[in-house]
Amino acid sequence: MNDSVTPLSRLSLNQETIKQWSLPELADGCVKAGIGQVGLWRAPVQAYGVGRTARLLSDAGLTVTSLCRGGFLTALDPADRAAALDDNRRAIDEAAALSTDTLVLVSGGLPPGSRDLYGARERVGDALAELAPYAAGRGVRLAIEPLHPMFASDRCVVSTLAQALDLAERFPAEQVGVVVDTYHVWWDDRAPAQIARAGAAGRIHSFQLADWITPLPAGVLLGRGQLGDGTVDFRALRTEVEAAGFDGPIEVEIFNETLWARDGSEVLAEVAERYLQHAC
Amino acid sequence: MNDSVTPLSRLSLNQETIKQWSLPELADGCVKAGIGQVGLWRAPVQAYGVGRTARLLSDAGLTVTSLCRGGFLTALDPADRAAALDDNRRAIDEAAALSTDTLVLVSGGLPPGSRDLYGARERVGDALAELAPYAAGRGVRLAIEPLHPMFASDRCVVSTLAQALDLAERFPAEQVGVVVDTYHVWWDDRAPAQIARAGAAGRIHSFQLADWITPLPAGVLLGRGQLGDGTVDFRALRTEVEAAGFDGPIEVEIFNETLWARDGSEVLAEVAERYLQHAC
Repeated sequence: MNDSVTPLSRLSLNQETIKQWSLPELADGCVKAGIGQVGLWRAPVQAYGVGRTARLLSDAGLTVTSLCRGGFLTALDPADRAAALDDNRRAIDEAAALSTDTLVLVSGGLPPGSRDLYGARERVGDALAELAPYAAGRGVRLAIEPLHPMFASDRCVVSTLAQALDLAERFPAEQVGVVVDTYHVWWDDRAPAQIARAGAAGRIHSFQLADWITPLPAGVLLGRGQLGDGTVDFRALRTEVEAAGFDGPIEVEIFNETLWARDGSEVLAEVAERYLQHAC
Repeated sequence: MNDSVTPLSRLSLNQETIKQWSLPELADGCVKAGIGQVGLWRAPVQAYGVGRTARLLSDAGLTVTSLCRGGFLTALDPADRAAALDDNRRAIDEAAALSTDTLVLVSGGLPPGSRDLYGARERVGDALAELAPYAAGRGVRLAIEPLHPMFASDRCVVSTLAQALDLAERFPAEQVGVVVDTYHVWWDDRAPAQIARAGAAGRIHSFQLADWITPLPAGVLLGRGQLGDGTVDFRALRTEVEAAGFDGPIEVEIFNETLWARDGSEVLAEVAERYLQHAC
C-alpha cells in the first residue's frame, strides 16, 4: 500500500493517541475518517476481548499494524524473568490472534538497586533468544523500540537505534527488528546512519510518529506532542526510512492528556491534517 | 592536588548544590567542612559583586574550579547573536577575575520554529571561533558541556560527548575542551570511549557529579539526585576519567529543591559522605 492509492493510505492510528475512544468507537471513527489501519495496546484489547477485537476490526475492514507491547525483560530474579517470558509469549499469541505481524517490545529499565545498563541489555538479548523462535512460529516479528535516553533507568535500557540493532542483529531480520519512533530518535545525530543500517537489513518493523515538545510534564511519559507542534523534522525522517527501503505503515502514536480531553473525531481529523502537512 | 592529601581534597562544591547559601555562607561552610574548592554561577556572583566574590573566596583560601556558565550561542538573528557573544566575553572576564581557568558553556537550544539541530551546532562552532582566542588571552578555557538529550530542543543542542568533542577539536585543547557531567552522560554507551578520546587530548576541563533519579519533575531541570540515590555508577566514571589522565577537581553539582530546603551544612556533610562512599 502506498501514497498512490490515497494520501492517507499509509497512515495508521495508534489507539493510545485517542485513548478516550472505546474499541468500537475507534473502529467506527477510523472507517468514517478513511483510515484503514490501527495500532493497538494490550490492556484495552484484553479488556474488550482479544477474539472480539479481532472480529470487530476485521468486520470494519481495518488492518492491525502493531501491538504494543511486550518486553520488560531485564529482571534479575529468576521467577520475575520467567513471568516476563510467559507474559511475552501471551503477547505474541495476542498479536497472532489480531493478525498483526509486529509486536513492539519495550526492554524494561534497571532492576531496583542495579546500575548495570550493559548487563540489563544482555538479559534482553538472552530473552529474545527464547522469544524470537516462538514468535516466528506464529508469524509475529519482534520489534525492539529504543526509547529516549530519559527513560533509560526506569523503562527502557535500550536508548538508541544502534543499541537496538546490536541486539536485533543476533537474530534473523524476519524475527527481530526495530521500531523507529521519531519521538525517541529525533535528537540522535547517528539516527540517519542507523536507519540506513536497519533498512538495508529489512529490520525497520515499525515507523511511528510523535512530536517533541517542551516543557516536559512530571514523569515525562505523557509529554508527546501533536505532529507539527514541536521540533521533530518528520519529512526528513520519513525520507530516511523510505530511502532505506521501508514502505510500511506510518503509525501516529501520541500520549498527551490534552488530546485525550478532546473529541476523538476532532483529534483524528487534526492528526490526518498534520500528517499530510508535516510528514508527506 | 590528589587524594593522598586528604580524602576530600579533590572535591569541589558547586554553589548551586546549596543554593540557599549566600556567598559568605558558602565560603564559611566550605572552610568549616574542610572543602577547599568551589564552582560558581554567574548570577549570584554578579549580585554579590565579582571583585568582592574573588576577595571573599581568596581570603577564605578557596579555589574556584569553574564558572557556570556561558554559551547560548545558537541564535539565528544577528543582533541576538552579537548580544550572546558580548555576554560570553563578559563571562570570560568574570572567570578571569575569579581566577578560575574554566568557563562552562551550555550551547543553547533551537531558535523558535527551527528544527535544524545540525545547523545550530555549527553556529556554536562559529561562535567558539570568536570566543576561544579571547578566552585564551585571559587564561580561561572554554568547556563545552553536553547536556542530556532531553534538553536538546530547549537548552542544549550538544547532547553527547562525541558531539562536544567534534566541536572542541576544531581548537587547541588548552582553549576548548569538554565537561564530563555524570548526570548527562551516564546512559551513553559511547561515553567510555569518548572520555578516553577527551582525556588523551587533554580536553577534560571539568568533571561534575550528580545522580540520575526518577520520576523526573515537570520541566526536568531540577531532577538531579544526591550521590548514591540513583542509577549513576560514579566509581566507574571516575575510573574512566582518571584512566584518561584527568587529575583535576571533582565538582558536585546537584539541582534539587529537596536539598535546597534543608540546612546547608547538613547537605554539605551528606555530599562529602556520599562522595567518599560512591565516588572514591
